[in-house]
Amino acid sequence: MSTVKAYAATSATEPLVPVTIERREVGAKDVMIEIAYAGICHSDIHTVRGEWGPVTYPLTVGHEIVGTVTEVGSEVTLHQVGDRVGVGCMVNSCRECVNCLAGEEQYCIPGNTGTYASVDRDGSITQGGYSTHVVVVEDFVLKVPESIPYEAAAPLLCAGITTYSPLSHWNAGPGTRVAVVGMGGLGHMAVKIAHAMGAEVTVLSQTLGKKDDGLRLGADHYYATSDPATFDELANSFDLVINTVSAVIDMSAYLSLLALDGTFVSVGAPPEPLPVQVFSLFGNRRSFAGSGIGSIRETQEMLDFCAEHGIAPEIELVNADYINEAYERVLKSDVRYRFVIDISTLA
Amino acid sequence: MSTVKAYAATSATEPLVPVTIERREVGAKDVMIEIAYAGICHSDIHTVRGEWGPVTYPLTVGHEIVGTVTEVGSEVTLHQVGDRVGVGCMVNSCRECVNCLAGEEQYCIPGNTGTYASVDRDGSITQGGYSTHVVVVEDFVLKVPESIPYEAAAPLLCAGITTYSPLSHWNAGPGTRVAVVGMGGLGHMAVKIAHAMGAEVTVLSQTLGKKDDGLRLGADHYYATSDPATFDELANSFDLVINTVSAVIDMSAYLSLLALDGTFVSVGAPPEPLPVQVFSLFGNRRSFAGSGIGSIRETQEMLDFCAEHGIAPEIELVNADYINEAYERVLKSDVRYRFVIDISTLA
Repeated sequence: MSTVKAYAATSATEPLVPVTIERREVGAKDVMIEIAYAGICHSDIHTVRGEWGPVTYPLTVGHEIVGTVTEVGSEVTLHQVGDRVGVGCMVNSCRECVNCLAGEEQYCIPGNTGTYASVDRDGSITQGGYSTHVVVVEDFVLKVPESIPYEAAAPLLCAGITTYSPLSHWNAGPGTRVAVVGMGGLGHMAVKIAHAMGAEVTVLSQTLGKKDDGLRLGADHYYATSDPATFDELANSFDLVINTVSAVIDMSAYLSLLALDGTFVSVGAPPEPLPVQVFSLFGNRRSFAGSGIGSIRETQEMLDFCAEHGIAPEIELVNADYINEAYERVLKSDVRYRFVIDISTLA
Repeated sequence: MSTVKAYAATSATEPLVPVTIERREVGAKDVMIEIAYAGICHSDIHTVRGEWGPVTYPLTVGHEIVGTVTEVGSEVTLHQVGDRVGVGCMVNSCRECVNCLAGEEQYCIPGNTGTYASVDRDGSITQGGYSTHVVVVEDFVLKVPESIPYEAAAPLLCAGITTYSPLSHWNAGPGTRVAVVGMGGLGHMAVKIAHAMGAEVTVLSQTLGKKDDGLRLGADHYYATSDPATFDELANSFDLVINTVSAVIDMSAYLSLLALDGTFVSVGAPPEPLPVQVFSLFGNRRSFAGSGIGSIRETQEMLDFCAEHGIAPEIELVNADYINEAYERVLKSDVRYRFVIDISTLA
């Protein structure tokens, strides 16, 4: 065991505070990572505030982690001391179910082990990346290409893969028309990745406030969803809609945007059910799908894709003592486009 | 114009009665069909009773039509007098939109012309198949193979294609696990077709009342959805679920049945929206889709497939004066599995 510095929530309502937490001994197949940067994801906030169900406090969150390997177990073959690596939303899975065997361990049927707030194999509760060090089994550790700016790499581990995976799975590319709903942490990555894949990209945002950014990041078109004319003008015109918004939306209106055999994929989810008129799926043989992060194999593919295409998130680098203020700004959508914590300010 | 015998609804609440209706002159590209048999589809009942919106009375319904060509227009090349033909749910489309040009005219963007209760190109209201004759443009007329029993062929034009199309589109076949929800007119055809395609077929019916039939028609397994253990036992186990039921169902329960990348396709729809928990789509990257009938090309493919595999609906042949009683029995699910009207009893 080692004792390391971290920031933790001590209840659903109080600010996060500096603490120390325990990391397990480096097992035969584990690597110890000295964390350099950790992204702030909206999921972190939902989790610490108990909005997705009860959690055990104190809890350290953070699942967009990059750092350097400082120690490897005796049987580790994939990583070496000094490697620049990343950890995303999961740190293990059952490895036995049909989905794990298919290499889609994000859909592990008994449930993958989340990077934080999950019950680990030893019965302890996993603690996330707002911390100086983490110990992770080697095959859930990604290689972060040198060409991606170190501090900007962190959000790729959640915002990047969560948008890359459905874009790749539903074949975004030359000749496909992709709409991205929401221009936040996930949305701005969806725009960059879809553009790099060669798709024609349209942003659907509540207002035109971020239009200049959207076009600069690779969008071909930008529409305000607060304008009802948007839905008339864009009816039947997308092959794929990536919805990054977690709010309850008018599904009939959004489904009407899909062309023949188009798919509306949600990567965000409101806690309430969404009312779906089945008739709105009949026209154009539309589909409404969900997608959750991506596999480890696909996450590595995404990192390599981003390196190859020179893609990285737009970030605002903050010190650890700014986390609580950053949370408030995330809740107001006042960030362009992802906060990343400089973990050296925690040490 | 010609005056022909028919059965029509005169209001949303009164029984159907014998009437005469007008059929247009046979145009250059039209064929006149002497109708032999017409199936009774639940849609007919919804329509005449105004449950899907207001309609113009008197109205003759029926969109599962088989008969013999008795006259062809001067420019007709696809059919000859004496041919055994069929007409399904649509009799025309715009022929100009992207979906029509793609050969998917069932998804015609301005809307295809329904076989009944639609506004035809000349402004009249189309009248369906509970009638001795119908005039239809040649390329919306199907060829009915001789090997399909004449009276049993009719329901293929709606129940057959409505289930064949999603089974084909979502690749039912050897190695795929297909569940069919509902064991009625559509459901029993889905079982036969999916079995003939080589899929492993499971029926999910409210009770086990039709289990013997289900297994005889080709199902490998048969479960009662009234038993909650069914959902536990079958979790994560289907690649494709074809939902033929129009009632509001517990979508989270049904979506939980889908395996990785599985799709739940509704071919029936309740008028109310269905509440969908987006989280239930995240697991296994599930999709919820809709499908409406099939294209003309695909309908011909389905007829040829059924002929090749010796598939035909299970029917109960009735006289025209039995229509109103048949409606009451359809509403009680008291039909195995499709009523077909012997149109000779109308003449």
